[in-house]
Amino acid sequence: MNNKIIKPSTLSGFMELLPKEQIEFNRIMDIIKRNYEKSGFVPIDTPIMEKSEILLAKGSEETDKQIYRFTKGSNDISLRFDLTVPFARYSAQHMEDIVFPFRRYQIGKVYRGERSQKGRYREFYQCDIDVISKGNLSLVNDAELPSIMCRIFKEIGLPAFKIHINNRKILNGFFKSLDVTDAVDVLRIVDKLDKIGVDSVKEELITIGIQNETVDKIIDFISIDGKKQKVLNALKALNIEEITFNEGLDEIEKVTHYLECFGVTEENYVIDLKIARGLDYYTGTVYETIIDDFRGIGSICSGGRYDNLAEYYTKEKLQGVGMSIGITRLFSQLKEIGVLKDDGLKASLSKVLIVPMDEEMDYAIDIAKKLREEEINSEVYLEKTKFGKKLNYANNTGIPYVIIIGEEEIRSGMLSFKDMTTGNQEKLSVEDIIKRFK
Amino acid sequence: MNNKIIKPSTLSGFMELLPKEQIEFNRIMDIIKRNYEKSGFVPIDTPIMEKSEILLAKGSEETDKQIYRFTKGSNDISLRFDLTVPFARYSAQHMEDIVFPFRRYQIGKVYRGERSQKGRYREFYQCDIDVISKGNLSLVNDAELPSIMCRIFKEIGLPAFKIHINNRKILNGFFKSLDVTDAVDVLRIVDKLDKIGVDSVKEELITIGIQNETVDKIIDFISIDGKKQKVLNALKALNIEEITFNEGLDEIEKVTHYLECFGVTEENYVIDLKIARGLDYYTGTVYETIIDDFRGIGSICSGGRYDNLAEYYTKEKLQGVGMSIGITRLFSQLKEIGVLKDDGLKASLSKVLIVPMDEEMDYAIDIAKKLREEEINSEVYLEKTKFGKKLNYANNTGIPYVIIIGEEEIRSGMLSFKDMTTGNQEKLSVEDIIKRFK
Repeated sequence: MNNKIIKPSTLSGFMELLPKEQIEFNRIMDIIKRNYEKSGFVPIDTPIMEKSEILLAKGSEETDKQIYRFTKGSNDISLRFDLTVPFARYSAQHMEDIVFPFRRYQIGKVYRGERSQKGRYREFYQCDIDVISKGNLSLVNDAELPSIMCRIFKEIGLPAFKIHINNRKILNGFFKSLDVTDAVDVLRIVDKLDKIGVDSVKEELITIGIQNETVDKIIDFISIDGKKQKVLNALKALNIEEITFNEGLDEIEKVTHYLECFGVTEENYVIDLKIARGLDYYTGTVYETIIDDFRGIGSICSGGRYDNLAEYYTKEKLQGVGMSIGITRLFSQLKEIGVLKDDGLKASLSKVLIVPMDEEMDYAIDIAKKLREEEINSEVYLEKTKFGKKLNYANNTGIPYVIIIGEEEIRSGMLSFKDMTTGNQEKLSVEDIIKRFK
Repeated sequence: MNNKIIKPSTLSGFMELLPKEQIEFNRIMDIIKRNYEKSGFVPIDTPIMEKSEILLAKGSEETDKQIYRFTKGSNDISLRFDLTVPFARYSAQHMEDIVFPFRRYQIGKVYRGERSQKGRYREFYQCDIDVISKGNLSLVNDAELPSIMCRIFKEIGLPAFKIHINNRKILNGFFKSLDVTDAVDVLRIVDKLDKIGVDSVKEELITIGIQNETVDKIIDFISIDGKKQKVLNALKALNIEEITFNEGLDEIEKVTHYLECFGVTEENYVIDLKIARGLDYYTGTVYETIIDDFRGIGSICSGGRYDNLAEYYTKEKLQGVGMSIGITRLFSQLKEIGVLKDDGLKASLSKVLIVPMDEEMDYAIDIAKKLREEEINSEVYLEKTKFGKKLNYANNTGIPYVIIIGEEEIRSGMLSFKDMTTGNQEKLSVEDIIKRFK
């Protein structure tokens, strides 16, 4: 061969994991998937490519610039940048075949050609759940979704975290009661509170023409915090008679009530009047999820309620609520903050390695066959090499047990079963070994 | 809203499934994944986009034309058209961090901008397993791979199928013994036997200048068929003293021996001297998988052994063997031939629907919580509507059981448990219901 060797590398901004990391990544994905399914969500899988006119129907300069868009033949194609737009298109397209309320989950890769920076990827997985209905959708859904997320994060083994809940109607109603007409601008500024601090927020509010007195009320309002009941009482004590505000207040009271029915305690949720989640999409409940000791990494799971999912593709109003975990970014952040430790990871899913000493291959294969019939992940060391090297393979991949098969073992039917962690070795029949693993 | 409505649709040539089909698709995927993992294969996940110079390193005009290629900023990007090239790049790139022999699986979408035609998709899943090593790789691997595929197809519930096995060395050696120098052309013609028939193959062979006598020998050779031992005996009886031929013969004898050790009987495999699997990639064992009664749909699982996986990205010779299931196409074919029946499919993964009669939401949620804690997939009907409509939801999605909760049930703690198939209804405690599902 006289090929030119091309240096093997991926495009920058793309995550690629080693097997041991991939196994851990998949373990987390499986927890997410299992919990979504356990709560009655069904999977869908949409193409990664969509017609550009579909993806760009809403249009936003910022998103548009990030989109991977190209032509092939006569097709104007874009890669999806989230799973929400494809879900909207899917729901409108298959409306007649969908049973409503439609509880769907989708786990898939999305693409954003952002400037490359640490912790930001151009290809990343989103894990979405949404419930949608034609017309009104019960508020209980707004409580069930975060309860599912809460269970997932506990199973993953996340450090102390809280789901922050707010309701856009509270914010909108509050600003309306103050006769603040440019609520959108105010919300944008308020949204930056955590990043820039109270003083800068005040300053910016004054800059856009808010009266001093009103600024103080806004600051007082967003400073309301603490336990659920304290926050609810403080909001009620404001005695605001604006309809939207009181709708929002009623909604958040119900949502947090049902959230507790679903088993979530205040250890894992908090009413947070400061979150707004963007400006033109959500209409009611909104969520962010913060790891208590690592606020800096931002929300790891967000979402909210919307009134009209598929307005660009159908006249039918689809009301819904959804949340999403950005697992690719979360995974890299968990490594970053040391929650995920590399040295605990294994490069194998096998429970046991079967090692024939020399010419015992047929027998070794038969043992593997028996273990696999019992759904025990197992592999045979098939290559001819020194015995020590075979054991090294188990050590290097992290396979916890080894079955050694030599002439003696075949004659007696008692296999040498070695615990690679302790080094202990005992003689066991294949039936005993199967029992051990069950 | 006065938005223009855009007709919701996908690009042509892209498969998109309804929830009930998706659930069945995922069930098949899970069988594949579980069996790969059970035999010691570890997952990897490479980006869907690669640098074009990587994907096009090998180059082939036919593939190149099909590739989705575009630029973004200064990047020349292509979407992967299979999982083998990314695997080669991955192995070369991460060589130092991989434990060899490396048993990897990858399930992911690949992209080919082919002319749209029935049963061909521009986006489809491949489910690959490969074992690679630095230097020699045991032939037992060539037997283990098809044994895994065999188990998968049985679990999926495929009708009678056979894995067809050949060895390129037998073909190459045989042609060499006949002094046929343009073996590549001959193989290409022989490869078409099933499609065009014996007479046309003879004619084409004569057209490219093969002597009549040699043509007859070729036809005799590829007509050898039947049970393993008969084929092996017939091949030995040819008394060909060419080295490569005898290597191949020895290899296929060993591979079929180990295949039987792994539990595969001749019901599910056959030596088939007619298959060659392309012309410049495989060097030893080759596989195709045919559903006996549906030869027309072609091979549903193919692969083979290769000498030098990553020759374009590293000087290290990685020897290996691999097989791949094209699950997207297989799924559409199984629907086509009626193996997959639409009316058996369910649009839900829930085992039970909990239906509060009226105002019993808190209690219903608590029951759901208890069932989910026992890993029983369950959902609550959360919307306010007539009782009959709530039951319809279970019927329409195929949820097999319903728990009805009214005042009476809450007072007594005995829930109405309805079997939606038989219509039977009984009173059970939540503990009894949990036991039922276990």
